[in-house]
Amino acid sequence: MSATVFDVAFTPASAPAGVAGSVAVVIDVLRMTTNAATLFSLGLSELFVVAEIEEARAVAGASGALLFGERGGVPLPGFNGGNSPLEHTGDLAGRKALLCTTNGSFAVQAVKDARAVLLGAIVNAGSVAQRALQLGAERVLLVCAGTNGSPSLDDVVGAGCIVRAALRGTGTVALTDSAKMALHIANQNTDLEATLLEAAHAAVLEGLGYDRDIAFAARLDSLPVAPERTAADPATFRLLG
Amino acid sequence: MSATVFDVAFTPASAPAGVAGSVAVVIDVLRMTTNAATLFSLGLSELFVVAEIEEARAVAGASGALLFGERGGVPLPGFNGGNSPLEHTGDLAGRKALLCTTNGSFAVQAVKDARAVLLGAIVNAGSVAQRALQLGAERVLLVCAGTNGSPSLDDVVGAGCIVRAALRGTGTVALTDSAKMALHIANQNTDLEATLLEAAHAAVLEGLGYDRDIAFAARLDSLPVAPERTAADPATFRLLG
Repeated sequence: MSATVFDVAFTPASAPAGVAGSVAVVIDVLRMTTNAATLFSLGLSELFVVAEIEEARAVAGASGALLFGERGGVPLPGFNGGNSPLEHTGDLAGRKALLCTTNGSFAVQAVKDARAVLLGAIVNAGSVAQRALQLGAERVLLVCAGTNGSPSLDDVVGAGCIVRAALRGTGTVALTDSAKMALHIANQNTDLEATLLEAAHAAVLEGLGYDRDIAFAARLDSLPVAPERTAADPATFRLLG
Repeated sequence: MSATVFDVAFTPASAPAGVAGSVAVVIDVLRMTTNAATLFSLGLSELFVVAEIEEARAVAGASGALLFGERGGVPLPGFNGGNSPLEHTGDLAGRKALLCTTNGSFAVQAVKDARAVLLGAIVNAGSVAQRALQLGAERVLLVCAGTNGSPSLDDVVGAGCIVRAALRGTGTVALTDSAKMALHIANQNTDLEATLLEAAHAAVLEGLGYDRDIAFAARLDSLPVAPERTAADPATFRLLG
């Protein structure tokens, strides 16, 4: 069996044009994809990822979905909540939600031509790596959401955790130089929270009072779910694996 | 005194548009900027960096410069040598040379709007960091040459060595997330050659018989020179510091 190549794009814009035949994994550790994994772990059945606020309101109104999102880390008026994985209370079994964030939602749009799209983070690194390999593509492209077009350290740590999990699987995995870099960064410190705290975006979240979100996002494999884009709609994710 | 911000572009294309006010450091560890540092250490007075082969021949013919270069790692016909830092024999005092390579020459063109341009590698990391700080810009952008548009591990190791040297200086240095990533990668292994050997381009060079070039490129601060673009011509480098 030929190897599955794991590659990393440090920003959505640097995702190669050849994403079409690949499995793409969108990674926004602080906080969109960590939040998505949390929502599914609480029983959510379906998640819509939308970048524009007005579209988010319209879709939520039509579908009865809960509406979560932020701009600049701050919850949006009229929404059911912001982008913190720690604000969800109670059972979400069977509910639908809509998530409208800045960088993560844009990254999902940037990989729309991929064969499959997963939402990955540190909290679900192992599950996402396993599902990506299960999908049988020759190439898995880990797309870091970044911050306003620049690479974010937190996302690259997440990518490195997924690469490491893939290497521990049963299949044959090959790494590009970018994937090796992400692996080095994830392996630098066994205390993943310490590495996340170095990220510029961690300081922003701390300034907004979201310190606990960073510790939560650093818990490796604490939420074993792999949110995956549905075939019917490129903005809709479910647990399909 | 305000901090000097060190940033890293993992490929020339991802160098921010705002390179104009910055000091740019072009990094092509395997092998263009390692070779450039070697040439100046052997006494070279002036280096022309050119991307196109025909332009290289024309410039060399007019200037009497030695002509070095490669395509795909292989020396070009009619040139005085390829791109190996180990092929230079004898004293180059007062000589001029022209270097025509694939990725490094392109990266030099990509930062033409920078306030100053240095050629950096592992072999001259400390000297380049010191000169970059001496130039007094608010921002130093380390531009990794990469390989055909994708990031190369060897260049990012070089960027991390320059970041580390800058942090050890006397000035106040701030790092972007990208600069922190490069630092993590350089710090991962004290054996820099082992990290370089992981790079995809290292395997290409080994296949061409250039194994010793990799060990040579990994010798931290072995060549204390900082080749710098002249004010007169954006393709001409000298030792100005």
